[in-house]
Amino acid sequence: MKTFASGASPSIPFDRLRVVGDCTLLEVAARRPITYSVANISHAVFDVTSPYLAGFAEDRQTFAVVDEKVMLLYGPSIVRYLTERTNFVGCMSIPGNEDAKNLRTVRRIFANAMEHRLDRSAVLVAIGGGVVMDVVGLTASLYRRGIDYLRVPTTLIGIVDVAVGIKTAINFLDKKNVLGAFHAPLGAIADRRLLKTLDRRHLACGLAEIIKMGIVRDPILFELAERHAESLLSSGFSEPADVPDEIILRAQASMIDELEPNLFERDKRRLVDFGHTVSPSLEAASGYRMHHGEAVAVDALFSTALATVQGFCDKNVFHRLRALHERISLPVSSEKLTGALAWRAFEEARKHRDGNLNLVVPTRIGNATFVQKVTSDELAAALTLMR
Amino acid sequence: MKTFASGASPSIPFDRLRVVGDCTLLEVAARRPITYSVANISHAVFDVTSPYLAGFAEDRQTFAVVDEKVMLLYGPSIVRYLTERTNFVGCMSIPGNEDAKNLRTVRRIFANAMEHRLDRSAVLVAIGGGVVMDVVGLTASLYRRGIDYLRVPTTLIGIVDVAVGIKTAINFLDKKNVLGAFHAPLGAIADRRLLKTLDRRHLACGLAEIIKMGIVRDPILFELAERHAESLLSSGFSEPADVPDEIILRAQASMIDELEPNLFERDKRRLVDFGHTVSPSLEAASGYRMHHGEAVAVDALFSTALATVQGFCDKNVFHRLRALHERISLPVSSEKLTGALAWRAFEEARKHRDGNLNLVVPTRIGNATFVQKVTSDELAAALTLMR
Repeated sequence: MKTFASGASPSIPFDRLRVVGDCTLLEVAARRPITYSVANISHAVFDVTSPYLAGFAEDRQTFAVVDEKVMLLYGPSIVRYLTERTNFVGCMSIPGNEDAKNLRTVRRIFANAMEHRLDRSAVLVAIGGGVVMDVVGLTASLYRRGIDYLRVPTTLIGIVDVAVGIKTAINFLDKKNVLGAFHAPLGAIADRRLLKTLDRRHLACGLAEIIKMGIVRDPILFELAERHAESLLSSGFSEPADVPDEIILRAQASMIDELEPNLFERDKRRLVDFGHTVSPSLEAASGYRMHHGEAVAVDALFSTALATVQGFCDKNVFHRLRALHERISLPVSSEKLTGALAWRAFEEARKHRDGNLNLVVPTRIGNATFVQKVTSDELAAALTLMR
Repeated sequence: MKTFASGASPSIPFDRLRVVGDCTLLEVAARRPITYSVANISHAVFDVTSPYLAGFAEDRQTFAVVDEKVMLLYGPSIVRYLTERTNFVGCMSIPGNEDAKNLRTVRRIFANAMEHRLDRSAVLVAIGGGVVMDVVGLTASLYRRGIDYLRVPTTLIGIVDVAVGIKTAINFLDKKNVLGAFHAPLGAIADRRLLKTLDRRHLACGLAEIIKMGIVRDPILFELAERHAESLLSSGFSEPADVPDEIILRAQASMIDELEPNLFERDKRRLVDFGHTVSPSLEAASGYRMHHGEAVAVDALFSTALATVQGFCDKNVFHRLRALHERISLPVSSEKLTGALAWRAFEEARKHRDGNLNLVVPTRIGNATFVQKVTSDELAAALTLMR
């Protein structure tokens, strides 16, 4: 027991004091609770009679940040809805492409937020795809030390992937997603009616992420995508009846089951990283002309090829996946995918995964495992199989 | 129970699914654990044989961000220590004044971090006062979605106040601390030997925060400050023996006891806000020529004057506090503190405190309560008492 000049040490409320050698340590421990919900709604989100967005916002200030393409299509409905149903203080549009995912856009949103005197209880409403949600989430994480934000995804990849998690990000000095925060949204509102205006290429990219979740966790999800791919794509994800809803729910639930116990990514063995090992390098090598979902599709096929070469799964899995990708016009290979690129991508992945490769490969449809070692012969054989 | 096209609903692992009206909700819930420690050390922190900083950093990369004045005094020892005892990759200096607490400085640190290829496990070492720790903390909260940082405070206010909490902040468009994050440090290392080179005015500012904690929570702390003020100031907080250590520990422990159950400030009734209601307006009105601790001292005295006017505490408390401030050359009044400024400050405070004033006033030395209403007569009487 340390004693002090005041002679009052017994009365010191120092339960937390530990004396280690000649060092006195005060320890602090707490837990920050995180809760949010993903709402799949059957009543158009911007219809003035729709209760969902207003239900999340209550009587708090709302400020909308909208993808500029979405603004052209839905601007009037968005503004009308927010004006009539919430304490709407303003909105702005931002580009939804990778180039806008930077500190300059974040600054612009800060400046607008301050001009509109958003208070601590204000809600930012992010309406758009992954880029818009990433940028707005980061802005919300810093403004007044963190305010709430809502995710209203307008893309399929947004609905089944981005909107479900808590990551936010921007690029800096050409490095993708190097700045960001884990900042949970107040909620995500998924209205698949918005997909009606999404082009086929973006729908296919969303399907790539759905197929990914099917392969690593949910065989029924994979089979639903396999059975109904054409109809889903040609109908803007509205047909056949009940199938789109089930696919979206299954994909989201699988994703959340994987994310929830590991929200802050302490564990670097993540099944959701299937298709996300060489894909960042593929996207970069294409100058981001290849979309994220397309790169994921190539990576998923490549990882499956490696799994068959290494004997983890039957060749049939590879062929089913390739056939499915072909049917929905996802790329099944890329001339950028060379042995050299793969090696560099593996190195990069190890850096982010505590030194381990943690390459996710399927063992069958609905199940996957992690691979730590790939020989150059195996790599060459996998690339040959893909051609 | 919702049924689906696949007919497979019973096998869907949708434990988390709730159907509310025509909306299907997936709910996510988690807790983020937060732990850190404040180490008060008796072996000079930058002495190459000192184990503390190296103990926190282990074999991870270290990058130091140092107050430019501190760099002039301690630069060689800092660099030598980090080089010999840690995996040192580089350092930079930044100004420690309010003007540098902005996005531009944060950008500079990001750019340096990327140039030095800091990875996810790197540790930023913030060496300086409140501004440096606030800026570095914010930078650490965003770089690669959050890396660790160490707080090495070089001011008394840093040791007893800033280093103990988890708040980070920068100013934006002339608004103080409007951007920030709650980002706990890996730890804080408090070496009061560094205070030897701190000027008397900065020491007095630190004492103002210590006296604040004494008044609202710990009468022994107040009495120690009252009894030993001159000696503490003239010795650079090194005399009389044992007193500086006890004062620092008591101030930190009181602060942590208040912060820990309310780390994210959900509860806006905070005893540590004593002296922090009109002080932000006083600082701003002085063009930041009045230091934070000085403004806190005036606010604490003003709040105590109000408490005596409203009958919450004996006039003797006010006189003891004023006498103590006078002895250590803290201001006991300010011509900027007018009725009009106080009203505006009260309005501003209500905005940050969910609509409530929550003015902290002492009931005796070591205990305080919250006031929600002040009449203009009471305000006038308090200002008269101060003159």
